[in-house]
Amino acid sequence: MSGLLHFEDFPVGRIFELGPYPVTREEVIAFAREFDPQPFHLDEDAANSSVLGGLSASGWHNCAMLMRMMCDGFLNRSAGMGSNGLSEVKWLKPVYVGETLRGAMTVLGARISSKRPEMGILECRWDLRNEAGELKVEETGVLFMRVRAP
Amino acid sequence: MSGLLHFEDFPVGRIFELGPYPVTREEVIAFAREFDPQPFHLDEDAANSSVLGGLSASGWHNCAMLMRMMCDGFLNRSAGMGSNGLSEVKWLKPVYVGETLRGAMTVLGARISSKRPEMGILECRWDLRNEAGELKVEETGVLFMRVRAP
Repeated sequence: MSGLLHFEDFPVGRIFELGPYPVTREEVIAFAREFDPQPFHLDEDAANSSVLGGLSASGWHNCAMLMRMMCDGFLNRSAGMGSNGLSEVKWLKPVYVGETLRGAMTVLGARISSKRPEMGILECRWDLRNEAGELKVEETGVLFMRVRAP
Repeated sequence: MSGLLHFEDFPVGRIFELGPYPVTREEVIAFAREFDPQPFHLDEDAANSSVLGGLSASGWHNCAMLMRMMCDGFLNRSAGMGSNGLSEVKWLKPVYVGETLRGAMTVLGARISSKRPEMGILECRWDLRNEAGELKVEETGVLFMRVRAP
């Protein structure tokens, strides 16, 4: 456990860079087929004639890809304790097949739970961008992290 | 197009019942392996000794299952135009393997976009519960829906 990142390693202002994550046609369609089978996430023609303007990932797929980037980036070497939710998810622009995503997590707030002194509560913001730096998704939410020295 | 539900079919207060959706071990582990490979979503022993108390779905998997229930429930016979995000996602309780989920979507607000008169903006709340009625997930967010008669 001692090698894991704990609450104390997430001070306010710390930024974790995440990714890269290539968005493949296969994965976009597989996710949409299972969880969001709307025509504009499944079919190029329907996508091109939709408001999205091309084959793009489900908004939930965007969130899932960002989650995977977090696990690979730091969470799977952290004493993470899950989350109870988000106060904002903004799908600002479609994430298109063929783009490569990069993310960043910024710690906005950090406090120890008054009920559970072994648990830290991190308020974080996540940004998801393509290789050109266009902001695609913004999330604000909570991450629970074990306190090293409660 | 005439058979599809449009903005006019989503008055404030209308409730859409969704599901059922059985939560299988196979699907929980497959989703976690791909998008949220934290030990407590992958392995029974790690799950039992975690704060979650048993093998449970990734929070993002919960959202994805609810999305699928929406598509099956009404969205794939609606003139949906996507969404730009949510103002709240609450993961209130873990969703365990073996539970069966039911959802509900309530229309909280409905207005026509001032910039795009062909597009309606629905503000909605979603609830996700198990068969015993325990509230697991709550979301509040936006759904864009084509106006039948702009």
